[in-house]
Amino acid sequence: MGLEDDINKTNEYYVEQGIAVIYKKPTPIKIVKVSFDEKKCGTIKEAYFKEPSTTDYNGIYKGKYIDFEAKEVQQSSFSLSNIHTHQIDHLRRIINHGGIGFLIVRFSKLGKTYLLPGHSLFQFLDTSDRKSIPVSLFEEEGIQIKDGYQPRLDYIKAVNTFYFGGEDSEKETSTSNKKL
Amino acid sequence: MGLEDDINKTNEYYVEQGIAVIYKKPTPIKIVKVSFDEKKCGTIKEAYFKEPSTTDYNGIYKGKYIDFEAKEVQQSSFSLSNIHTHQIDHLRRIINHGGIGFLIVRFSKLGKTYLLPGHSLFQFLDTSDRKSIPVSLFEEEGIQIKDGYQPRLDYIKAVNTFYFGGEDSEKETSTSNKKL
Repeated sequence: MGLEDDINKTNEYYVEQGIAVIYKKPTPIKIVKVSFDEKKCGTIKEAYFKEPSTTDYNGIYKGKYIDFEAKEVQQSSFSLSNIHTHQIDHLRRIINHGGIGFLIVRFSKLGKTYLLPGHSLFQFLDTSDRKSIPVSLFEEEGIQIKDGYQPRLDYIKAVNTFYFGGEDSEKETSTSNKKL
Repeated sequence: MGLEDDINKTNEYYVEQGIAVIYKKPTPIKIVKVSFDEKKCGTIKEAYFKEPSTTDYNGIYKGKYIDFEAKEVQQSSFSLSNIHTHQIDHLRRIINHGGIGFLIVRFSKLGKTYLLPGHSLFQFLDTSDRKSIPVSLFEEEGIQIKDGYQPRLDYIKAVNTFYFGGEDSEKETSTSNKKL
Protein backbone atom coordinates (compact mmCIF):
# COMPACT_ATOMS: atom_id res chain seq x y z
CA MET A 1 0.00 0.00 0.00
CA GLY A 2 3.07 2.28 -0.09
CA LEU A 3 2.43 3.93 -3.46
CA GLU A 4 -1.32 4.16 -2.98
CA ASP A 5 -0.85 5.77 0.40
CA ASP A 6 1.70 8.25 -1.00
CA ILE A 7 -0.67 9.26 -3.81
CA ASN A 8 -3.67 9.57 -1.49
CA LYS A 9 -1.70 11.81 0.88
CA THR A 10 -0.44 13.86 -2.08
CA ASN A 11 -4.00 14.25 -3.38
CA GLU A 12 -5.14 15.46 0.07
CA TYR A 13 -2.37 18.05 -0.09
CA TYR A 14 -3.44 19.13 -3.60
CA VAL A 15 -7.07 19.57 -2.47
CA GLU A 16 -6.05 21.53 0.66
CA GLN A 17 -3.75 23.81 -1.32
CA GLY A 18 -6.29 24.34 -4.11
CA ILE A 19 -3.90 22.82 -6.66
CA ALA A 20 -6.05 19.96 -7.99
CA VAL A 21 -9.08 17.85 -7.04
CA ILE A 22 -8.12 14.23 -7.65
CA TYR A 23 -9.40 11.18 -5.76
CA LYS A 24 -8.93 7.43 -5.75
CA LYS A 25 -12.13 5.65 -6.64
CA PRO A 26 -13.38 3.17 -4.05
CA THR A 27 -12.63 -0.52 -4.71
CA PRO A 28 -15.47 -1.94 -6.80
CA ILE A 29 -17.25 -4.79 -5.01
CA LYS A 30 -20.38 -6.83 -5.54
CA ILE A 31 -22.43 -6.84 -2.35
CA VAL A 32 -24.36 -10.08 -1.81
CA LYS A 33 -25.57 -10.01 1.79
CA VAL A 34 -26.19 -7.11 4.17
CA SER A 35 -27.56 -7.47 7.69
CA PHE A 36 -29.18 -4.57 9.54
CA ASP A 37 -29.05 -3.92 13.28
CA GLU A 38 -31.81 -2.27 15.33
CA LYS A 39 -30.56 1.20 14.30
CA LYS A 40 -30.92 0.19 10.63
CA CYS A 41 -27.18 0.37 10.15
CA GLY A 42 -26.08 -2.10 7.52
CA THR A 43 -23.14 -4.48 7.88
CA ILE A 44 -21.94 -6.18 4.73
CA LYS A 45 -21.70 -9.92 5.47
CA GLU A 46 -20.85 -11.20 2.02
CA ALA A 47 -19.29 -9.39 -0.90
CA TYR A 48 -16.79 -10.04 -3.69
CA PHE A 49 -14.11 -7.96 -5.36
CA LYS A 50 -15.01 -6.96 -8.92
CA GLU A 51 -12.62 -6.28 -11.75
CA PRO A 52 -12.36 -2.51 -12.19
CA SER A 53 -13.70 -1.20 -15.51
CA THR A 54 -11.86 2.09 -15.27
CA THR A 55 -8.65 3.37 -13.70
CA ASP A 56 -8.15 4.05 -10.00
CA TYR A 57 -7.73 7.81 -9.98
CA ASN A 58 -9.44 10.71 -11.67
CA GLY A 59 -10.15 14.37 -11.12
CA ILE A 60 -9.51 17.88 -12.34
CA TYR A 61 -6.35 19.98 -12.67
CA LYS A 62 -6.22 23.45 -14.24
CA GLY A 63 -9.66 22.84 -15.73
CA LYS A 64 -8.54 19.61 -17.44
CA TYR A 65 -9.81 16.10 -16.79
CA ILE A 66 -7.06 13.88 -15.33
CA ASP A 67 -7.16 10.07 -15.26
CA PHE A 68 -4.52 7.56 -14.26
CA GLU A 69 -3.68 4.14 -12.94
CA ALA A 70 -0.96 3.59 -10.34
CA LYS A 71 0.94 0.34 -9.78
CA GLU A 72 3.80 -0.79 -7.61
CA VAL A 73 5.93 -3.65 -8.96
CA GLN A 74 8.87 -5.64 -7.60
CA GLN A 75 10.47 -6.51 -10.95
CA SER A 76 12.54 -4.10 -12.98
CA SER A 77 10.00 -4.30 -15.82
CA PHE A 78 6.30 -3.56 -15.84
CA SER A 79 4.28 -6.66 -16.70
CA LEU A 80 1.23 -5.82 -18.79
CA SER A 81 -0.77 -8.24 -16.63
CA ASN A 82 -0.81 -5.40 -14.10
CA ILE A 83 -3.26 -3.44 -16.21
CA HIS A 84 -6.52 -4.81 -17.64
CA THR A 85 -7.51 -4.40 -21.30
CA HIS A 86 -10.61 -2.40 -20.41
CA GLN A 87 -8.47 -0.06 -18.30
CA ILE A 88 -6.30 0.58 -21.36
CA ASP A 89 -9.44 1.09 -23.49
CA HIS A 90 -10.66 3.53 -20.86
CA LEU A 91 -7.40 5.53 -20.99
CA ARG A 92 -7.59 5.64 -24.80
CA ARG A 93 -11.15 6.98 -24.64
CA ILE A 94 -10.15 9.64 -22.12
CA ILE A 95 -7.39 10.89 -24.37
CA ASN A 96 -9.69 10.80 -27.43
CA HIS A 97 -12.12 12.99 -25.51
CA GLY A 98 -9.43 15.55 -24.74
CA GLY A 99 -8.46 14.41 -21.25
CA ILE A 100 -5.05 13.71 -19.74
CA GLY A 101 -4.28 10.03 -19.11
CA PHE A 102 -1.14 8.33 -17.81
CA LEU A 103 0.39 5.62 -15.62
CA ILE A 104 2.32 6.03 -12.40
CA VAL A 105 4.57 3.02 -11.79
CA ARG A 106 6.84 2.44 -8.82
CA PHE A 107 9.67 -0.06 -9.21
CA SER A 108 10.12 -0.95 -5.54
CA LYS A 109 13.51 -2.67 -5.77
CA LEU A 110 14.96 0.18 -7.83
CA GLY A 111 13.34 2.70 -5.50
CA LYS A 112 12.11 4.71 -8.48
CA THR A 113 8.66 6.02 -9.46
CA TYR A 114 7.78 7.21 -12.97
CA LEU A 115 4.92 8.92 -14.73
CA LEU A 116 4.46 7.49 -18.24
CA PRO A 117 2.09 9.45 -20.53
CA GLY A 118 -0.74 7.52 -22.19
CA HIS A 119 0.59 8.09 -25.70
CA SER A 120 3.90 6.37 -24.84
CA LEU A 121 2.00 3.42 -23.36
CA PHE A 122 -0.21 3.09 -26.46
CA GLN A 123 2.75 3.37 -28.81
CA PHE A 124 4.44 0.51 -26.97
CA LEU A 125 1.27 -1.62 -27.01
CA ASP A 126 0.64 -0.91 -30.69
CA THR A 127 4.17 -1.66 -31.88
CA SER A 128 5.53 -4.33 -29.54
CA ASP A 129 4.67 -7.95 -28.82
CA ARG A 130 6.41 -7.92 -25.47
CA LYS A 131 4.40 -8.78 -22.40
CA SER A 132 6.17 -6.30 -20.17
CA ILE A 133 7.46 -2.76 -20.52
CA PRO A 134 11.16 -2.42 -19.68
CA VAL A 135 12.14 0.20 -17.15
CA SER A 136 14.22 1.84 -19.91
CA LEU A 137 11.02 3.01 -21.62
CA PHE A 138 9.97 4.73 -18.40
CA GLU A 139 13.44 6.33 -18.19
CA GLU A 140 13.38 7.50 -21.80
CA GLU A 141 9.76 8.55 -22.27
CA GLY A 142 8.53 9.09 -18.73
CA ILE A 143 9.55 11.41 -15.95
CA GLN A 144 10.85 10.24 -12.61
CA ILE A 145 8.81 11.53 -9.69
CA LYS A 146 10.98 12.15 -6.66
CA ASP A 147 9.84 11.29 -3.15
CA GLY A 148 9.29 14.29 -0.96
CA TYR A 149 7.91 15.29 2.38
CA GLN A 150 5.04 17.65 1.55
CA PRO A 151 3.64 16.48 -0.84
CA ARG A 152 5.05 12.98 -0.71
CA LEU A 153 4.92 12.33 -4.46
CA ASP A 154 4.57 15.57 -6.40
CA TYR A 155 3.37 14.02 -9.67
CA ILE A 156 1.68 17.25 -10.80
CA LYS A 157 5.15 18.56 -11.67
CA ALA A 158 5.48 15.81 -14.28
CA VAL A 159 1.94 16.57 -15.51
CA ASN A 160 3.00 20.20 -15.97
CA THR A 161 6.07 19.19 -17.93
CA PHE A 162 4.16 16.87 -20.27
CA TYR A 163 0.87 18.68 -20.68
CA PHE A 164 1.26 22.33 -19.70
CA GLY A 165 4.67 23.10 -21.16
CA GLY A 166 6.89 23.51 -18.13
CA GLU A 167 7.71 22.40 -14.65
CA ASP A 168 7.34 25.77 -12.95
CA SER A 169 3.81 26.66 -13.99
CA GLU A 170 2.52 24.69 -10.99
CA LYS A 171 3.93 27.21 -8.54
CA GLU A 172 1.94 30.06 -9.99
CA THR A 173 -1.26 28.06 -9.86
CA SER A 174 -0.80 26.89 -6.33
CA THR A 175 -0.73 30.51 -5.18
CA SER A 176 -3.45 31.97 -7.38
CA ASN A 177 -5.86 29.07 -6.99
CA LYS A 178 -5.76 28.87 -3.22
CA LYS A 179 -9.49 28.91 -2.57
CA LEU A 180 -11.72 26.35 -0.85
CA MET B 1 -32.60 2.10 -7.87
CA GLY B 2 -34.64 3.54 -10.78
CA LEU B 3 -32.74 6.78 -11.31
CA GLU B 4 -29.33 5.22 -10.71
CA ASP B 5 -30.09 2.47 -13.18
CA ASP B 6 -31.34 4.97 -15.79
CA ILE B 7 -28.17 7.05 -15.45
CA ASN B 8 -25.89 4.02 -15.59
CA LYS B 9 -27.58 2.77 -18.75
CA THR B 10 -27.41 6.26 -20.25
CA ASN B 11 -23.69 6.46 -19.42
CA GLU B 12 -23.11 3.09 -21.13
CA TYR B 13 -24.84 4.51 -24.20
CA TYR B 14 -22.69 7.66 -24.09
CA VAL B 15 -19.49 5.57 -23.90
CA GLU B 16 -20.58 3.26 -26.75
CA GLN B 17 -21.53 6.21 -28.96
CA GLY B 18 -18.36 8.14 -28.17
CA ILE B 19 -20.38 11.01 -26.68
CA ALA B 20 -18.95 11.11 -23.15
CA VAL B 21 -17.04 8.96 -20.66
CA ILE B 22 -18.87 9.21 -17.36
CA TYR B 23 -19.08 6.55 -14.64
CA LYS B 24 -20.66 6.05 -11.26
CA LYS B 25 -18.03 5.61 -8.59
CA PRO B 26 -18.26 2.40 -6.60
CA THR B 27 -19.93 2.62 -3.17
CA PRO B 28 -17.23 3.47 -0.62
CA ILE B 29 -16.92 0.77 2.04
CA LYS B 30 -14.55 -0.04 4.86
CA ILE B 31 -13.44 -3.65 4.58
CA VAL B 32 -12.80 -5.31 7.96
CA LYS B 33 -12.56 -9.05 7.28
CA VAL B 34 -11.67 -10.98 4.12
CA SER B 35 -11.39 -14.76 3.89
CA PHE B 36 -9.48 -16.50 1.11
CA ASP B 37 -10.32 -19.83 -0.46
CA GLU B 38 -7.76 -22.34 -1.85
CA LYS B 39 -7.59 -20.38 -5.14
CA LYS B 40 -6.69 -17.24 -3.18
CA CYS B 41 -9.97 -15.60 -4.15
CA GLY B 42 -11.09 -13.24 -1.43
CA THR B 43 -14.59 -13.07 -0.03
CA ILE B 44 -15.43 -10.04 2.07
CA LYS B 45 -16.99 -11.29 5.31
CA GLU B 46 -17.32 -8.03 7.19
CA ALA B 47 -17.48 -4.50 5.82
CA TYR B 48 -19.27 -1.22 6.51
CA PHE B 49 -20.68 1.53 4.32
CA LYS B 50 -18.67 4.76 4.50
CA GLU B 51 -19.98 8.26 4.00
CA PRO B 52 -18.95 9.39 0.52
CA SER B 53 -16.52 12.33 0.44
CA THR B 54 -17.26 13.20 -3.17
CA THR B 55 -20.20 12.92 -5.55
CA ASP B 56 -21.37 9.71 -7.22
CA TYR B 57 -20.61 10.46 -10.86
CA ASN B 58 -17.74 12.00 -12.74
CA GLY B 59 -16.10 11.88 -16.14
CA ILE B 60 -15.34 13.82 -19.27
CA TYR B 61 -17.52 15.42 -21.95
CA LYS B 62 -16.21 17.52 -24.84
CA GLY B 63 -12.87 17.77 -23.07
CA LYS B 64 -14.47 19.17 -19.89
CA TYR B 65 -14.51 17.60 -16.44
CA ILE B 66 -18.09 16.69 -15.39
CA ASP B 67 -19.16 15.95 -11.82
CA PHE B 68 -22.60 15.40 -10.34
CA GLU B 69 -24.72 13.84 -7.66
CA ALA B 70 -28.05 12.13 -8.46
CA LYS B 71 -30.92 11.64 -6.01
CA GLU B 72 -34.43 10.31 -6.19
CA VAL B 73 -36.93 11.73 -3.67
CA GLN B 74 -40.58 11.02 -2.87
CA GLN B 75 -41.47 14.49 -1.62
CA SER B 76 -42.15 17.43 -3.89
CA SER B 77 -39.21 19.30 -2.39
CA PHE B 78 -35.56 18.31 -2.17
CA SER B 79 -34.44 17.99 1.45
CA LEU B 80 -30.86 19.17 1.92
CA SER B 81 -30.29 16.13 4.13
CA ASN B 82 -29.98 14.20 0.85
CA ILE B 83 -26.63 15.77 0.15
CA HIS B 84 -23.69 15.91 2.57
CA THR B 85 -21.78 19.09 3.34
CA HIS B 86 -18.53 17.65 1.99
CA GLN B 87 -20.29 16.73 -1.25
CA ILE B 88 -21.34 20.37 -1.62
CA ASP B 89 -17.78 21.48 -0.80
CA HIS B 90 -16.56 19.05 -3.44
CA LEU B 91 -18.91 20.51 -6.08
CA ARG B 92 -17.78 24.04 -5.20
CA ARG B 93 -14.14 23.01 -5.63
CA ILE B 94 -14.87 21.40 -8.99
CA ILE B 95 -16.49 24.58 -10.27
CA ASN B 96 -13.65 26.73 -8.86
CA HIS B 97 -11.21 24.55 -10.80
CA GLY B 98 -13.11 25.10 -14.06
CA GLY B 99 -15.18 21.91 -14.09
CA ILE B 100 -18.91 21.42 -14.62
CA GLY B 101 -20.89 20.43 -11.52
CA PHE B 102 -24.61 19.89 -11.01
CA LEU B 103 -27.37 17.85 -9.38
CA ILE B 104 -29.81 15.48 -11.03
CA VAL B 105 -32.95 15.10 -8.92
CA ARG B 106 -35.94 12.89 -9.65
CA PHE B 107 -39.22 13.69 -7.91
CA SER B 108 -40.79 10.23 -8.08
CA LYS B 109 -44.38 11.22 -7.23
CA LEU B 110 -44.35 14.05 -9.77
CA GLY B 111 -42.66 11.79 -12.31
CA LYS B 112 -40.17 14.54 -13.15
CA THR B 113 -36.37 14.64 -13.30
CA TYR B 114 -34.34 17.86 -13.33
CA LEU B 115 -30.77 18.94 -13.80
CA LEU B 116 -29.92 21.84 -11.49
CA PRO B 117 -26.58 23.61 -12.18
CA GLY B 118 -24.16 23.97 -9.27
CA HIS B 119 -24.36 27.78 -9.29
CA SER B 120 -28.14 27.68 -8.69
CA LEU B 121 -27.64 25.23 -5.82
CA PHE B 122 -24.95 27.40 -4.22
CA GLN B 123 -27.02 30.56 -4.61
CA PHE B 124 -29.89 28.87 -2.80
CA LEU B 125 -27.61 27.59 -0.02
CA ASP B 126 -25.92 30.97 0.39
CA THR B 127 -29.11 33.04 0.52
CA SER B 128 -31.75 30.81 2.12
CA ASP B 129 -32.23 29.28 5.55
CA ARG B 130 -34.65 26.65 4.26
CA LYS B 131 -33.78 23.01 4.81
CA SER B 132 -35.21 21.89 1.51
CA ILE B 133 -35.24 23.19 -2.05
CA PRO B 134 -38.76 23.59 -3.47
CA VAL B 135 -39.47 21.94 -6.81
CA SER B 136 -40.22 25.44 -8.17
CA LEU B 137 -36.49 26.26 -8.05
CA PHE B 138 -35.80 23.22 -10.22
CA GLU B 139 -38.55 24.34 -12.62
CA GLU B 140 -37.26 27.90 -12.81
CA GLU B 141 -33.49 27.43 -12.77
CA GLY B 142 -33.06 23.82 -13.85
CA ILE B 143 -33.97 21.91 -16.98
CA GLN B 144 -36.35 18.98 -17.01
CA ILE B 145 -34.79 15.83 -18.44
CA LYS B 146 -37.34 13.77 -20.31
CA ASP B 147 -37.41 9.96 -20.09
CA GLY B 148 -36.53 8.23 -23.30
CA TYR B 149 -35.75 4.85 -24.71
CA GLN B 150 -32.20 5.16 -26.02
CA PRO B 151 -30.70 6.79 -24.03
CA ARG B 152 -33.07 6.52 -21.10
CA LEU B 153 -32.22 9.86 -19.55
CA ASP B 154 -30.44 12.12 -21.99
CA TYR B 155 -29.03 14.57 -19.46
CA ILE B 156 -26.20 15.64 -21.79
CA LYS B 157 -28.79 17.76 -23.66
CA ALA B 158 -29.29 19.84 -20.52
CA VAL B 159 -25.51 20.04 -20.06
CA ASN B 160 -25.28 21.40 -23.62
CA THR B 161 -27.92 24.02 -22.92
CA PHE B 162 -26.30 25.25 -19.72
CA TYR B 163 -22.62 24.92 -20.50
CA PHE B 164 -22.13 24.74 -24.25
CA GLY B 165 -24.65 27.29 -25.45
CA GLY B 166 -27.36 25.20 -27.06
CA GLU B 167 -29.30 21.99 -27.07
CA ASP B 168 -28.39 20.89 -30.56
CA SER B 169 -24.63 20.94 -30.31
CA GLU B 170 -24.78 17.41 -28.89
CA LYS B 171 -25.96 15.96 -32.17
CA GLU B 172 -22.90 17.20 -34.03
CA THR B 173 -20.58 15.76 -31.40
CA SER B 174 -22.25 12.40 -31.26
CA THR B 175 -21.53 11.94 -34.95
CA SER B 176 -18.06 13.43 -35.12
CA ASN B 177 -16.76 11.83 -31.94
CA LYS B 178 -17.81 8.30 -32.73
CA LYS B 179 -14.51 6.59 -32.13
CA LEU B 180 -13.58 3.73 -29.80
